[in-house]
Amino acid sequence: MMTFQMLCFLFLFSVFILCDANFSVPYISVNTERLIEDLKILGQFSDGDYPGITRLLYSKEDKAARRYLIALFEKSGLSVSWDPVGNIFARWEGSDPRAPAVASGSHFDTLLNAGLYDGTLGVLGALEAVRSLKEVGFEPKKSIEIVAFTSEEVSRFGIGCLGSRYLVGSLTVEELLKLKDSDGVSFENARQSCGYIEKLRESMIAEDYYSAFVELHIEQYHILEDEGVPIGLVTDIAAPSLYTIEWKGPGGHAGSVPSYERQDPFLAASEFALNLEQLVLKDPKNTRATIGRVEVYPGSAGAIPRSVRLSLDIRDINEAARIKVKEQALEKAAAIARKRKVTMETLHNYSYPPAKMDPRIVEVIEDSCRAHNFSYLKLISRPFHDSLFMATKFPTGMIFIPCKEGKSHVPDEYASPEDILRGVEVLAETLARLSYQ
Amino acid sequence: MMTFQMLCFLFLFSVFILCDANFSVPYISVNTERLIEDLKILGQFSDGDYPGITRLLYSKEDKAARRYLIALFEKSGLSVSWDPVGNIFARWEGSDPRAPAVASGSHFDTLLNAGLYDGTLGVLGALEAVRSLKEVGFEPKKSIEIVAFTSEEVSRFGIGCLGSRYLVGSLTVEELLKLKDSDGVSFENARQSCGYIEKLRESMIAEDYYSAFVELHIEQYHILEDEGVPIGLVTDIAAPSLYTIEWKGPGGHAGSVPSYERQDPFLAASEFALNLEQLVLKDPKNTRATIGRVEVYPGSAGAIPRSVRLSLDIRDINEAARIKVKEQALEKAAAIARKRKVTMETLHNYSYPPAKMDPRIVEVIEDSCRAHNFSYLKLISRPFHDSLFMATKFPTGMIFIPCKEGKSHVPDEYASPEDILRGVEVLAETLARLSYQ
Ligand SMILES: [Mn+2]
Ligand SMILES: [Mn+2]
Ligand SMILES: [Mn+2]
Ligand SMILES: [Mn+2]
Repeated sequence: MMTFQMLCFLFLFSVFILCDANFSVPYISVNTERLIEDLKILGQFSDGDYPGITRLLYSKEDKAARRYLIALFEKSGLSVSWDPVGNIFARWEGSDPRAPAVASGSHFDTLLNAGLYDGTLGVLGALEAVRSLKEVGFEPKKSIEIVAFTSEEVSRFGIGCLGSRYLVGSLTVEELLKLKDSDGVSFENARQSCGYIEKLRESMIAEDYYSAFVELHIEQYHILEDEGVPIGLVTDIAAPSLYTIEWKGPGGHAGSVPSYERQDPFLAASEFALNLEQLVLKDPKNTRATIGRVEVYPGSAGAIPRSVRLSLDIRDINEAARIKVKEQALEKAAAIARKRKVTMETLHNYSYPPAKMDPRIVEVIEDSCRAHNFSYLKLISRPFHDSLFMATKFPTGMIFIPCKEGKSHVPDEYASPEDILRGVEVLAETLARLSYQ
Repeated sequence: MMTFQMLCFLFLFSVFILCDANFSVPYISVNTERLIEDLKILGQFSDGDYPGITRLLYSKEDKAARRYLIALFEKSGLSVSWDPVGNIFARWEGSDPRAPAVASGSHFDTLLNAGLYDGTLGVLGALEAVRSLKEVGFEPKKSIEIVAFTSEEVSRFGIGCLGSRYLVGSLTVEELLKLKDSDGVSFENARQSCGYIEKLRESMIAEDYYSAFVELHIEQYHILEDEGVPIGLVTDIAAPSLYTIEWKGPGGHAGSVPSYERQDPFLAASEFALNLEQLVLKDPKNTRATIGRVEVYPGSAGAIPRSVRLSLDIRDINEAARIKVKEQALEKAAAIARKRKVTMETLHNYSYPPAKMDPRIVEVIEDSCRAHNFSYLKLISRPFHDSLFMATKFPTGMIFIPCKEGKSHVPDEYASPEDILRGVEVLAETLARLSYQ
């Protein structure tokens, strides 16, 4: 039989437990309009027609965008710094400044003629989360640091997640110094021309420099939209492989050489593309294979092509399956080359292992969703992100919001203000909670 | 019974006839070394690595090449002039300056990374013929005029034989003013920036301005080489059609969209290319179809292509057959577009009728070959040339010489000094004979 004391104890204990479970962040008011305004302004730093955004690493548009971002961060009272490759850090000092900071961010470069939200939402969304928390008087314990990664897209130097890979030490100075863009401009020249003149050094960031990394991103697919769920919690990130294949033939005059004498590398590439499609259709749910970049040389209407170089991007959550598709594809490519009497060369650009998100971070994001009464869905990210590499060193999580029809990397990429609002609310809640964990 | 007077008359008459049949040009000594030296110097005016030649119309390399050519012509005592599009004329005044001149020449622009001889041999070869004739004291009756056509290749403005078409009035000022290059630079701006600031006007050249036009050119195929014959006499020029086809889809992220959801215009283009090959293989001896220019947009490894634009070049000696292939090809292209749910647009760039060379000119070239004891072969030119258009207004003929392995439009395009020598000897002989006809 329970005594009154026992009941009192149980009651107090329950209150204590509930308070802990309901660690409560002051009610924040995210200013979605301000955030979308900032996204649109950032979108103006583009070498192309808005809303198609082209902002390549170290281009003059990128340089201008950097100045704009730094000004925005400073206006919000954050301490801004950067590393030699141009990853930008904006720090909100916590009451325990020596504790490992809680980081959040994404990239602000784009592919060619891409959209307004990919990457930038994670940078400016983190800023909006910080601004909202500041405005309601929240004071972080662990510092909160926004990271704007210098380049995540492969567009300029053919390498993805350049900034985050450099930061976590998965990209060495030696590798960086080998990079050239398609115009032959070296990474090092481009970096310095963008004002990063500090000598390149290996990043030596410690394993406990950040206690957590959280990236807010559009889903870049339509599962959330189809299910009518506003928030996605990423559990795994699928891993990419990139190859470059080049076929070469003797070319010749378009009027002279009859079909049966031609050794046309574009026909080899065409045959390869259709074979690849068939190969992937065998397990279409998991494997993705894309020929996105195709360069036909010399590219004159009156000349049979002499070379075709294309990018082969293969992705899978299952590394072994990905390797199998790659092997079958390259075997087929070589067989086509033999049949069509063209030469073939293959370059392996990169392959990365898949990443698992940290269960503790995922849980905090779940708690944050519950605190706001948002339904959520756990899902796999098939596109990869800076989080793929941040996860190799720090406990990492990703928050997805829906984007219209799943479209991304296109000018009509779109996330609604309502979805953006919910995403930033969950992010702010998550950062605040992690700051006190 | 014949009288002595009759016999005398017959003898003198025979001598007269024989002299006329053997109209004899002084023995000329072509300086092949000098000519090849000139070809190599002209090859230095190139936006690319020698021996790959890139000299696009009105580029700075083209501008420099023009200065060089004019200086060469003037050094040989020719009167140089040009028209508003930059066709250059170098005239050797004959003893009957009012008689319609005998013209010879070709183009001096190139495709991207092309060879040393295509076009330029016909320009500098004509100059060498004139120099050789001058050096042995030949005096023309009809004037001899070298024509250096401003642009024959489609590389910059997507239009072939621009210079010759303008000259004979098959390209109007209105059409010229519509032309833009792939960077959006208008023909008119490019023309003026190259120094041709004279107002564009329709060319009003009279039908009897030239009594003949003769073009010396490499064969751009290997019939002469295979047969071991040094000279080809062109009887017909096959006629080209050029179309531009563009397929467009929604694009998307390379990691997200599964194969069965993609609307990939590059796969449409690939399927089209392979179908076109099969279509042409049905009558491979006559029809030529080439996809030489392929532009894939946005061209990022991480993005499914959103558009593919390609050039479709079809040639045939039989215009009806060419039209049939075109119709079947475009029908197939549309069917592929429907199947793959991509949009398709087709642009008809141009179509020209085939040309017949003038029997009288062909005969004079034959006589010139015989005079030098060179064997020759009559053949069809499947590549087209400025002669295609010159033939619409003036009696025209073409002299072909072999090129190694039939290669053309490539850096290793090659014609031997011996073949060049024979070609210029026949050209000089032909021009001299035509000058007295
Ligand atoms: Mn992206
Ligand atoms: Mn991204
Ligand atoms: Mn040519
Ligand atoms: Mn030519």
